[in-house]
Amino acid sequence: MTTGSPARAALIALDWGTSSLRAYRLDATGRTLDTRHLPWGIMRLPQPLQDGAATNALSGFELAFDQACGDWLRAEPALPVIACGMVGSAQGWKEAAYLDVPVDLERIGTLLTVVDRHGATPVHIVPGLIQRHGLPNVMRGEETQVFGVMFDQTGGNADSVLIGLPGTHSKWVNARRGRVTHFDTFMTGEVYAALRGHTILGRTMADAASADMAAFERGVKVAGAPAGRAGVLSTIFSTRALGLTGELAPESQADYLSGLLIGHEIAALAEMLRQQGDLPRIVLCGEPALCQRYILAMQHYGLETPEQAQNATERGLWHLAVCGGLVASSQTIPA
Amino acid sequence: MTTGSPARAALIALDWGTSSLRAYRLDATGRTLDTRHLPWGIMRLPQPLQDGAATNALSGFELAFDQACGDWLRAEPALPVIACGMVGSAQGWKEAAYLDVPVDLERIGTLLTVVDRHGATPVHIVPGLIQRHGLPNVMRGEETQVFGVMFDQTGGNADSVLIGLPGTHSKWVNARRGRVTHFDTFMTGEVYAALRGHTILGRTMADAASADMAAFERGVKVAGAPAGRAGVLSTIFSTRALGLTGELAPESQADYLSGLLIGHEIAALAEMLRQQGDLPRIVLCGEPALCQRYILAMQHYGLETPEQAQNATERGLWHLAVCGGLVASSQTIPA
Repeated sequence: MTTGSPARAALIALDWGTSSLRAYRLDATGRTLDTRHLPWGIMRLPQPLQDGAATNALSGFELAFDQACGDWLRAEPALPVIACGMVGSAQGWKEAAYLDVPVDLERIGTLLTVVDRHGATPVHIVPGLIQRHGLPNVMRGEETQVFGVMFDQTGGNADSVLIGLPGTHSKWVNARRGRVTHFDTFMTGEVYAALRGHTILGRTMADAASADMAAFERGVKVAGAPAGRAGVLSTIFSTRALGLTGELAPESQADYLSGLLIGHEIAALAEMLRQQGDLPRIVLCGEPALCQRYILAMQHYGLETPEQAQNATERGLWHLAVCGGLVASSQTIPA
Repeated sequence: MTTGSPARAALIALDWGTSSLRAYRLDATGRTLDTRHLPWGIMRLPQPLQDGAATNALSGFELAFDQACGDWLRAEPALPVIACGMVGSAQGWKEAAYLDVPVDLERIGTLLTVVDRHGATPVHIVPGLIQRHGLPNVMRGEETQVFGVMFDQTGGNADSVLIGLPGTHSKWVNARRGRVTHFDTFMTGEVYAALRGHTILGRTMADAASADMAAFERGVKVAGAPAGRAGVLSTIFSTRALGLTGELAPESQADYLSGLLIGHEIAALAEMLRQQGDLPRIVLCGEPALCQRYILAMQHYGLETPEQAQNATERGLWHLAVCGGLVASSQTIPA
């Protein structure tokens, strides 16, 4: 095909979670032309104005959407729009399905939920994933990152890959030959914030000028040591006790607690992998400083140093849009 | 000795923690004559009035103390006063020592810290305990309950007892022949409150008219099941996921989460006891409904049904006052 100016786009992709909204304008080869980061997560949308002159007040979702990409669409009205994340939850713009795991990755892109905007450009929402065997488990948004990692980093059909997505809720996703086969969730990030902000452990912490990685590693090691055998409900109290005995400075306590929690997560993960007799290739995808913490913990617990994936969300949204027929597959950058 | 009227007291005993203050008036045999429960924990004391007429404004501790037992002392000015709990912490009225574990119980009573009240009745504060081997651990207040349990329930010299003190911070205390030899802390109660009040798990919970003990037991079982092997940072997310799949009603989610947390605590405890080859007699001491939850979990994880101790704090304060020479030992009720 012939392309227009370099600034011409082929897709608008939205990563729309609980606390923020990222918008990407992608060209016909899947490259990012523009990115915007707005505070309009689905739990804190802009308030519609109650303006007497307006006969149809726009919803919070429409207002946020317009700020994210209204001008892009006015310049190129035919652009398709795809979105992933909590925007497809029951509290979102429109509820999108959960697909049952195991699931073929390509199937995810063919089951997009359409938000009908009454003549304006519709929004196609990516389904989440649900796992019903064992304890049930769900994800929304991470399936798109997995898609991006699998297609960009592993060529889609890698034999066995474990994809780690550290964050508020860490996900560890097993994928094999184009299928998501299993995943686990750890609430590590949110538990850390709750312990720090809303328990006695936060009372003795002081802000630090920079991260104390020695304190972090000390915490990591405790999780798998004999002293940590009572589990995380017990070891976290040592954050306070080590402070009372003068063995852990107030400025180091937050990083020590971070090490404890990530250490317990990775120690449990490593043990599960060993029980399965399966040490797959691991790809980590997330905020770089947080990934660095996970890598230290993985090294301590005998896991191989993982690869790190970049831009997985926008890459996943692009590949899903291709699967869903929103953009032509021949336009995709060759791997 | 000859006793006076039945209402004559021999000791004022205070259980003074972070969030509340309990005052006991005990007679010469250690029996409770009066009890008061005030909201004046050390973190929320009454505010001293800035009254221009008062040359010496009373501190928050003095004001709370006066409300708790000022009239008792005015009626019987010679009564000794003993106190335990966070009142002896660095944030308390006066910092009392931590005694190193292992420690002889009787020694605790001989090392009381005296708050000099400038001519008024002094207050004798019970020391806390500190454990420096392995991860450090501390207690303040629970040592007094242990004292009460050991002297009342076990005759002080039982061969090996494990005393469980469920609460905001659960303590499991090993005692043997009059000595505290080891203890563990689990932050189960405080973690429960933080998860419920300050994470996404609380968002889908609804208040229940009564406890759902079936949901509680379901949570207890998960902790030790194959589905729970990823540990508590992972299993807690099933509270939300089971709600999303319609398998757990909003009214049942808080009790399920309670079961998960207590289940992980007791599963870890049972495993540690088995590794030690030691299944001691267990005594449980705490709020009855909470103890009932712990008993269900202990039964599920193969521990014997524990005895339950009553009034351990006031009994402990009494025995400590005897050890410390504040009241005559010959006055104690025979066991």
